[in-house]
Amino acid sequence: MQPKSASVTECPAARALETVGEWWSILILRDAFQGMTRFDEFEASLGIAPNILSRRLSHLTTAGMFSRRRYHDRPARYEYVLTPKGRDFFPVLVALFGWGNRHLAPKGESIVLASRSDRHPLTPIVVDAVDLHPLTPANTVVVAGPRASRGMRHRLASLKAMNPDMPLPGG
Amino acid sequence: MQPKSASVTECPAARALETVGEWWSILILRDAFQGMTRFDEFEASLGIAPNILSRRLSHLTTAGMFSRRRYHDRPARYEYVLTPKGRDFFPVLVALFGWGNRHLAPKGESIVLASRSDRHPLTPIVVDAVDLHPLTPANTVVVAGPRASRGMRHRLASLKAMNPDMPLPGG
Repeated sequence: MQPKSASVTECPAARALETVGEWWSILILRDAFQGMTRFDEFEASLGIAPNILSRRLSHLTTAGMFSRRRYHDRPARYEYVLTPKGRDFFPVLVALFGWGNRHLAPKGESIVLASRSDRHPLTPIVVDAVDLHPLTPANTVVVAGPRASRGMRHRLASLKAMNPDMPLPGG
Repeated sequence: MQPKSASVTECPAARALETVGEWWSILILRDAFQGMTRFDEFEASLGIAPNILSRRLSHLTTAGMFSRRRYHDRPARYEYVLTPKGRDFFPVLVALFGWGNRHLAPKGESIVLASRSDRHPLTPIVVDAVDLHPLTPANTVVVAGPRASRGMRHRLASLKAMNPDMPLPGG
């Protein structure tokens, strides 16, 4: 194995993926947002092998996205509750959900995101928190932050040189 | 293997993950947003084994996120260009990027998302396209769409029964 490049170790999107772990973890988080907290609920929802589920729940707990809470004593049983860090993963799920409905449901959606108050359908988009304009590859760029390594600064500079008219996020 | 549950086959977030494939694919898309198109560019950026990279590029091409374009004849060389479907994955990357910077960079960011025009830093949030209010677990819910199967309707109904005060996205 060669050492990981700065594009993997310093990019917040890459680190987010590393933290979450994988595919199943994201679906476990999805189910948690839908109110599930217990092992058997996740297992029934996902049809996932118990050993894999157990590993993913431990991983997400260690990563600070779930806190584990005992809800039964003999035998000891635990439930998994989203922490603020876990709850803040919501926009990623909503973005995946929106992309899936736009591109993978040509015959109509099976599930629709809706307003909780009156059930009208919602269309998630990503905007800047300050002026609310939609963020696109064309109007954004990534720049070095205060902790950028020399390798990352080099990468960002070379991206710009490679294709000055092609912006974007990720490191 | 048991058959996949409706929560996997019908949920647009789950299907989005299945389509993209995995971890590396998302970083390949990230690099494509940064202007990379060629095998050796992705390889150098990611430090990824050539056989894995080759498989991921084929997968993303088959999935309709890249189109392959010949740029050299002898030997034949191809570049990978984002399709509209691929470009529309941008919000997912921005959401991951934002989460990573908020939660995994306690000592400061290495990379910052910025405005292309004047380089001021941006904070991505997910809002509804119509009225621009931020979407949260508290103000959203998932409901059955026109193509929901009986299994999915059952699931959505049982989620509601399980925890009427806990909304969310994902199927």
